[in-house]
Amino acid sequence: MSETLPATPAVNDAAGTDRNEQLRARVALARVCEPMHPVVSALAAEVGAIDTWAAVRAGLGRFASLASRVAALDVDRELHVSERLGLRIVLPGDAEWPPGLDDLLVPPWCLWVRGAGDLRTLTDRSVAMVGARASTAYGNRWAADASYELAGRGVHVVSGAAFGIDAAAHQGALAAQRPTVAVLAGGADRAYPAAHAQLLQTIAEGGVVLSESPPGSAPMKQRFLARNRLIAAATRGTVVVEAGLRSGAINTVSHAEALQRPVAGVPGPVTSTASAGVHQLIRDGRAVLVTDADEVMEVMGDYGEDAAPTKRGESRPIDSLSGDVLTVHEALPVRRAVGVDRLTVTAGLGVTQVLAALAQLEADGLAQREADGTWRKA
Amino acid sequence: MSETLPATPAVNDAAGTDRNEQLRARVALARVCEPMHPVVSALAAEVGAIDTWAAVRAGLGRFASLASRVAALDVDRELHVSERLGLRIVLPGDAEWPPGLDDLLVPPWCLWVRGAGDLRTLTDRSVAMVGARASTAYGNRWAADASYELAGRGVHVVSGAAFGIDAAAHQGALAAQRPTVAVLAGGADRAYPAAHAQLLQTIAEGGVVLSESPPGSAPMKQRFLARNRLIAAATRGTVVVEAGLRSGAINTVSHAEALQRPVAGVPGPVTSTASAGVHQLIRDGRAVLVTDADEVMEVMGDYGEDAAPTKRGESRPIDSLSGDVLTVHEALPVRRAVGVDRLTVTAGLGVTQVLAALAQLEADGLAQREADGTWRKA
Repeated sequence: MSETLPATPAVNDAAGTDRNEQLRARVALARVCEPMHPVVSALAAEVGAIDTWAAVRAGLGRFASLASRVAALDVDRELHVSERLGLRIVLPGDAEWPPGLDDLLVPPWCLWVRGAGDLRTLTDRSVAMVGARASTAYGNRWAADASYELAGRGVHVVSGAAFGIDAAAHQGALAAQRPTVAVLAGGADRAYPAAHAQLLQTIAEGGVVLSESPPGSAPMKQRFLARNRLIAAATRGTVVVEAGLRSGAINTVSHAEALQRPVAGVPGPVTSTASAGVHQLIRDGRAVLVTDADEVMEVMGDYGEDAAPTKRGESRPIDSLSGDVLTVHEALPVRRAVGVDRLTVTAGLGVTQVLAALAQLEADGLAQREADGTWRKA
Repeated sequence: MSETLPATPAVNDAAGTDRNEQLRARVALARVCEPMHPVVSALAAEVGAIDTWAAVRAGLGRFASLASRVAALDVDRELHVSERLGLRIVLPGDAEWPPGLDDLLVPPWCLWVRGAGDLRTLTDRSVAMVGARASTAYGNRWAADASYELAGRGVHVVSGAAFGIDAAAHQGALAAQRPTVAVLAGGADRAYPAAHAQLLQTIAEGGVVLSESPPGSAPMKQRFLARNRLIAAATRGTVVVEAGLRSGAINTVSHAEALQRPVAGVPGPVTSTASAGVHQLIRDGRAVLVTDADEVMEVMGDYGEDAAPTKRGESRPIDSLSGDVLTVHEALPVRRAVGVDRLTVTAGLGVTQVLAALAQLEADGLAQREADGTWRKA
C-alpha cells in the first residue's frame, strides 16, 4: 500500500501534498465513522482531519471500537473504486465545495459527487424541496410545478431522490431542462430507491448526485437523518410540500432551523394526512405558508428582485367609492328610479351632498338619470 | 307623539326613566344615522346618546344633512313596530348586552334582537366563524363539522347567516342541537338572504338573530362592513374558513385584529381560489393555521382546560432507539443472519458495544439470535 497517491481525474483541485493527505484522511474517516460521529467529529474540529485519522487509526482510547473498520480499510482501494465509478471526491475548501456546508456543526468529511454539473454553482441559488414519500397527486403536482417555475428562474432544486415529493421536485426541474441536485443517504453510486436508477442517471447528466457516505454504502436510518442536514445546509432554504406528522421532511426542517435557514410549507386540505405535518409546522410558526414559486422566492429572499407580487382580487369601480358617494350609490335602486328627496332619506344626507354624489356617480358611469329627473343605478 | 313610553315586553331591563330616555335617543340615532357614523358617534362618545340625539334633532351644524331622516322619524312608531315584530331592543348596560361590544371604538346605538336565547350568555363562550359566500364543499364541510364540535363543547358559533360558510357554520351548531347567533346587516326582521328565512327562523327558536339596524333596514354594503365589527367584537375570536382575496371575511378579520381578538384560518388546497385569502392571512401572520375544533379552542384560549392535544404519528418501538443500539439495529440484516464480527464492521463499533446493543434489541424483541450464534432483525 503506497503512501503516494497517483494523480487521478477523480480528485479535483489538488493543492499539493496537503490536499492529498486531507483526502486520504477524510476518505478513511468517512469509511470508518458513521456521519455525524460525535466523538471523532469533535476531535476533528479541534485538531483537523489528518491528526484525527492518525488517532483513530492508532485505536486510541474510545476509538478502539472502530478497530474492525480500520483493519478492513484500504485507502488506495477506496480512491481507485471511486475513480472507477466516476465519482469525484470534493473536500472542504475545494472550488466545488458548497460553502453552506461549513455552517454545519458536524460537516461531512468529504463528498462523493457524480454528474456534469458544478456543485457549488448549482447550490449557490438553490432551494431544498422535500416531502413525504407517501405523497398525494396534489403534492406531487405542486412540487413539480413549483420546481419547474423555480428552475426557469435559475433557482436549483435540491432534494433526496426518494419516492413521492422528492422525485416530483427533481422531475419538475428536469422538465424545465434545468439541472437539479440529488443528495443520497447511501453511496452516490447506488441507485436508491432502485426504481429511481434512471431518474438519478438523468439528474447526473446535467446536475449532480452526491453523498457523504462512501461508494457502496447502504442507506440506513442514521444516514438518512445525516443526509437531511446536507440538504438543509447546502441550500438557501427548505420548502416542505407534504409531510405526515412523522415525516423525515420534518427532520430536514429541524436542520434548516438550526442553521437559521428559512423554511416554507405548502398547505393542503386539512382532510389529507399527507399535509398534517406541514400544517403543524405552519401553525407552530416553524414554516411560512407558501402557495406558489413566487412566494417561495420571497421567503428564500436575497435572490435580488424576487419579492412575490401581492395577490389581489379583480378591482371593480365601486370599490373605489367612499363616504357620501358610496352611501348614495348604495341608496340608489337598480330597477325603479327614485327622486333626490327620497335619496336624502334613504342615504341620510342633505340635498347638496346627494346631488354632489350623484354627479360623481354619473361621471363614473355608476348612476343614471331618467328623463323625469329621478335616478337609479347605471 | 307622547314622550311617555308605555312599558312593553319588547323593552327589557328597564332602569326607570333614564333607560327610557336612552332607549328613545338610541333608537332615533340608529334610524337617522348609518352605523359607524363618524361625527355623530364621536359626539356621543363625548356627551352621551341623549344629548347627541338632541343636537341631531335640532339640526345643529353638520347634522343638518340628517334633517330629512329626522323629519321622517316617529320614535313611538319605531318602538311599536319593534314590539309587533317580536324584536326586543337591547341597550349598552342591559343584562343581555354582550360586553365585548364595549371594546368597539364605535359601538352600536342598540341592538334589535329576536329569539329564545340570551345574547349575553350565548356570546360569553363564543367564536365567530366566517367565510366566503362562494364557498366549496370542502369549506362547507369543515365549517359544519367544526361548528358541531364546538357547539358540543358549549362554544357558541356566531356568524352572518350568509350563503356558504356562514350558513354551514350555523347548521353545524343546529345539528348539535345547540343555539347559534346570527348577526344581520339589515333589519333583524328581514330574512336576508331570502332563501335563509327558514334557517333564520330555526336559529331564533333556540338562539338569537340580531342587528344594529332598525327593523326593515335593507342590507347595504356599509351595513355589512359595520355588521362585521359586531361579529368580531361579540366573540372571543374569529375563524376564517374559506375566503377569496377580496372576501368580506377579511374585513371581519381586520376588526378582530383591531380589537386584539385572536384570528384563526383554515388552510385548503392552494389550487382553490376560495382558500387564497385565508392562505394570505396565515402567510402574513394575521391568522393562526387551524385544522380542527381542538385547535380552534386552543387559539381562542381561555376556555379552561382546552389546549389542543399535540398531534403525533403512531409510535413504533424502533423510534425510541438511539446511539449504538440504533446503529446496530440498522446494521442487522432482515433476511440472512450475520455474525457479531461482521456487525462490528457494518456498525463501526467494538465487540463489547455490539453485544450490549444486541442484548437490548433482543430484550425489546427487535433482534433475533439464530442457533449458530448469528443475528438478524426480529
